[in-house]
Amino acid sequence: MTSISRRFLFGAAAALPAYGALSTVLPGAASAGLSPIGQQVPGLYRYKVGTMEVTAVSDGARTSPLADGFVKNASLAEVNAALKAAFLPEGQITAQFNPLLINTGGKLVLIDTGNGPQSGGATVGQLMANLAWAGVKPIDVDTVIISHFHPDHINGLRDDEGALAFPNAEVLVPAAEWAYWMDEGEMSRAPEARQAAFKNVRRVFKDIETRVQRFDADKEIAPGITSVATYGHTPGHTSFVLASGNDKVFVQADVTNLPALFVTHPEWEVQYDMDPAKAIETRRRVYDMLAAERLLVTGYHFPFPALGHAAKDGEGYRFVPADWSPVL
Amino acid sequence: MTSISRRFLFGAAAALPAYGALSTVLPGAASAGLSPIGQQVPGLYRYKVGTMEVTAVSDGARTSPLADGFVKNASLAEVNAALKAAFLPEGQITAQFNPLLINTGGKLVLIDTGNGPQSGGATVGQLMANLAWAGVKPIDVDTVIISHFHPDHINGLRDDEGALAFPNAEVLVPAAEWAYWMDEGEMSRAPEARQAAFKNVRRVFKDIETRVQRFDADKEIAPGITSVATYGHTPGHTSFVLASGNDKVFVQADVTNLPALFVTHPEWEVQYDMDPAKAIETRRRVYDMLAAERLLVTGYHFPFPALGHAAKDGEGYRFVPADWSPVL
Repeated sequence: MTSISRRFLFGAAAALPAYGALSTVLPGAASAGLSPIGQQVPGLYRYKVGTMEVTAVSDGARTSPLADGFVKNASLAEVNAALKAAFLPEGQITAQFNPLLINTGGKLVLIDTGNGPQSGGATVGQLMANLAWAGVKPIDVDTVIISHFHPDHINGLRDDEGALAFPNAEVLVPAAEWAYWMDEGEMSRAPEARQAAFKNVRRVFKDIETRVQRFDADKEIAPGITSVATYGHTPGHTSFVLASGNDKVFVQADVTNLPALFVTHPEWEVQYDMDPAKAIETRRRVYDMLAAERLLVTGYHFPFPALGHAAKDGEGYRFVPADWSPVL
Repeated sequence: MTSISRRFLFGAAAALPAYGALSTVLPGAASAGLSPIGQQVPGLYRYKVGTMEVTAVSDGARTSPLADGFVKNASLAEVNAALKAAFLPEGQITAQFNPLLINTGGKLVLIDTGNGPQSGGATVGQLMANLAWAGVKPIDVDTVIISHFHPDHINGLRDDEGALAFPNAEVLVPAAEWAYWMDEGEMSRAPEARQAAFKNVRRVFKDIETRVQRFDADKEIAPGITSVATYGHTPGHTSFVLASGNDKVFVQADVTNLPALFVTHPEWEVQYDMDPAKAIETRRRVYDMLAAERLLVTGYHFPFPALGHAAKDGEGYRFVPADWSPVL
């Protein structure tokens, strides 16, 4: 039997070791409740998809000044107007990062891995701490599925010493994504600004080529998880459908970035879309489908817990966050 | 030093004692992560209002069939259409309950107290468990502020043995609310359906009359917390403004019930509005102000964490949930 203050646990989350058993000093003071905590609660939210238990696991958020060119085909004034309409601060962008943990019943599956280990004070790189709060040890993860090879999705495959962060996991990646980023010709022809991303892909996947399994689109790649080609954001960018019983959730990954900007204005080009025209075509196709089928959608960069619906609204769509349920 | 599985903590929240030190059995099995948790994470969310640290603390949620008469002046078909437009299930209503904990710097203040102790299996009455997860012991609470005397706001003042749930707290109540519910003449003239509520008020406040302080509208009743008369829902129904530095949040209490119905249709009368015409007038006045000032608002029955903005939209308003911030 152990005795421990939950307030301390909650308040100290970010300072804790990343996983496994928690060692802590008892805080003692009964009046601890009177001083502010100064930290957010762990970024976890559970929901059921049929018999699957899904957990949105935040990797944190990063706020940057709104750069001219963040939206390539809209003016700063237009982007600020969209931020204001969504009651978001003007002149800045907060990107959130939401890997998804899925207990399929037989397998523990993680879709995308966050920004990876960060140095002190970073507001991202929280995946491992939040997984630990969810009671999940890295060795428990059976399968890691990657939507595409941008660093905020793959860097969490490695720990801070460069070892595999999920040592028991098979790693499933889109075949089209692998083919593009691993191609020496593509790398040599790519613009200078993309060289770092090519090198990062090679760093992350170095020496684990045999562990990586490449999947095609429209395949059930894990129990109840089907790949859907949503190319454009990257050459092999892939979304997923979770399906169990009568329930279905569309895991859009980066079909849109911030919903306040790109669900509302699907024709806007976020600077990260590698083939903007194709990305817009994909966005239209996916959001027409989501709206028509009234399908739940989760987005990697949506505000945590990153779950909701899309409705047609004028020339674009409106993102309607799902109500948080205090009951699972 | 103690060693404990956080997964166990998170998974076992609802079964834990309501407050204080946590005693638990170590789960042992390293593979615990592979079985589903089967419970939602604790309903807690922190935000800053200037130097105040505010915590939304869920008391849970209750789902009931949509009754004819839940909205007194709309048909079931109209209500179902509004639910569908918000991507909520038709034919049922889920009410959430969101007391608010405020660390003013010098005082720990709780606004409203939830449904109180419930018997096993209830999906409400979670306030104490969630406060414990936040590290707050009932003896730590300095001040309890009550918005109005409906049972889902006051019943948590008593524990399951009828003792004061927050034994060190002063209890602040709206003077107009106290005057109405404690008046024998009002009770004798009230319709039969309201007798239980009168009796419940007398049960909850029995023998603590000297501890209760009655406040008027437009007074700073605790550091940075000002009362605002929003009569109609009940005769003395009161909202609050939290203000610190440049930040301000309007604590609307029950000016509207579910935003998907009553922010969208402020002219709709929820069955709980005791003076429907006055409640609608109040709702219009408050929401015109919220929309004009672009003020953050939190609502007791809003979906957790119950924070957002209101925008004018046609004849009504649109509730725009605030983005969850993984960073405090």
